[in-house]
Amino acid sequence: MPAPVAPATLATHACFGGVMSFHRHDSAATRSAMRFAVYTPPQAATRRVPVLYFLAGLTCTEETFMMKAGAQRLAAELGLMLVAPDTSPREVRIAGDDASWDFGLGAGFYVDATAAPWAAHYRMYSYVTAELPALLAAHFPADPGAQGIFGHSMGGHGALVAALRNPGRYRSVSAFAPIAAPMRCPWGEKAFSHYLGADRSSWAAYDASALLAAHARGGTILVDQGTGDKFLDEQLQPDALVAAARQSGQQLELRMQPGYDHGYYFISTFIADHLRFHAERLCR
Amino acid sequence: MPAPVAPATLATHACFGGVMSFHRHDSAATRSAMRFAVYTPPQAATRRVPVLYFLAGLTCTEETFMMKAGAQRLAAELGLMLVAPDTSPREVRIAGDDASWDFGLGAGFYVDATAAPWAAHYRMYSYVTAELPALLAAHFPADPGAQGIFGHSMGGHGALVAALRNPGRYRSVSAFAPIAAPMRCPWGEKAFSHYLGADRSSWAAYDASALLAAHARGGTILVDQGTGDKFLDEQLQPDALVAAARQSGQQLELRMQPGYDHGYYFISTFIADHLRFHAERLCR
Repeated sequence: MPAPVAPATLATHACFGGVMSFHRHDSAATRSAMRFAVYTPPQAATRRVPVLYFLAGLTCTEETFMMKAGAQRLAAELGLMLVAPDTSPREVRIAGDDASWDFGLGAGFYVDATAAPWAAHYRMYSYVTAELPALLAAHFPADPGAQGIFGHSMGGHGALVAALRNPGRYRSVSAFAPIAAPMRCPWGEKAFSHYLGADRSSWAAYDASALLAAHARGGTILVDQGTGDKFLDEQLQPDALVAAARQSGQQLELRMQPGYDHGYYFISTFIADHLRFHAERLCR
Repeated sequence: MPAPVAPATLATHACFGGVMSFHRHDSAATRSAMRFAVYTPPQAATRRVPVLYFLAGLTCTEETFMMKAGAQRLAAELGLMLVAPDTSPREVRIAGDDASWDFGLGAGFYVDATAAPWAAHYRMYSYVTAELPALLAAHFPADPGAQGIFGHSMGGHGALVAALRNPGRYRSVSAFAPIAAPMRCPWGEKAFSHYLGADRSSWAAYDASALLAAHARGGTILVDQGTGDKFLDEQLQPDALVAAARQSGQQLELRMQPGYDHGYYFISTFIADHLRFHAERLCR
């Protein structure tokens, strides 16, 4: 594989002694221009630092987490690089990609689509797990040997799937309110039937509960879930993840947070716990 | 004055053990519906807590600070209520109010307009310094004897003016990148000429540097200003505030922050310092 071409830098902002930066590049995986955001902590001035990927939820962009989660303060203290990709291709367009808010633009579901017309560009799984890490290793002071991943909702699903399918690539994984069993909820069924086709046997490769029931990945998985989350019962189904973890013997710390909802006021409340969880596993 | 009518609650979110809430009410000062946001810290469950007002900058709403500054974490720890009003009336409309981004909607400049047609509704000074505090005291667990105020850019101007004109009402004041001498910069001249009319002698009542040159308010004023702020020289002019403070003997701690720009990545970096500054003066 040739060395990745350096991404363009769209904006930079000083932040907690480090740098927030926003980038755009031509992605081979999605055959589209893609955007992503990076927080580079001050420690990266003198050495490569561990890198923690955050996958965002439906309708979000590469900016959402960086703007709303309040993660940079502690990332600067812990010496963690934060990377947030966009949630789908944006610049290439496919008919129907903006017909609904929970599918298409802003809703790539971190799968490699196999069904037409989406298969041509909606390859967010390869983009997030392979192309983007290679780009970070080549052009940023990121330590490719110390990677962690986490995410929210659709992105919590994406993070769990990425870590369960690549146990050696990610040292740590956590999630906020993940879509834990997408094969069995309306959001997931809609997305998978379009991206992966009608044959449900192919869906299990992107279902965290199905993957986890088959194989534990070692270590602990941290999940926070608000009890006041309006999507809890129908879309998120943390019980399915608990059952799968029990089946394979995976250590899972599921924390039900009383009264918290699905938004970034919830995420910001517990972001420090997640950053410390990852730092304990990445900074050693 | 009759007791203020309770505002409607549009949304609530659990956040750091306290509650983020968004409200709407019919304002007497602006004769328009107004929106504001409140962060109520956990300590307010058992007692009235000090209240810190944040005035936002051009184009912002009541949501911006609450979403982007990362202030709730430390406010929860310190027991501070945070209140963020919108930056202008929104629901009542005046011809020309959306003709430019730096005047009218989202740009009330925290003055009581005296010139037609703006005088009918653009009375943000009275709204912020009198009506909103009375509403908070009547319907929230806010201690009206422990109030502080801060803000950003246009809102830094607003906070300084509010505190300099009402030294007994606010125990503490600070600002991020304030428009320090609006009578002498393009944003201020545009806004004041429309809101206050052509007679510049009336403008000084809303110019922090003019007010401060005439009277010190006691205590210290904290101001953070990024050196990489593109508005620094033409619009913000911290030097005018320094000169005014010297003239009246006001203690002013102006911190020039190397490389920081005008946005919320700058504010979030230094928000903890400001919250501690206010808490030292409010929580005693």
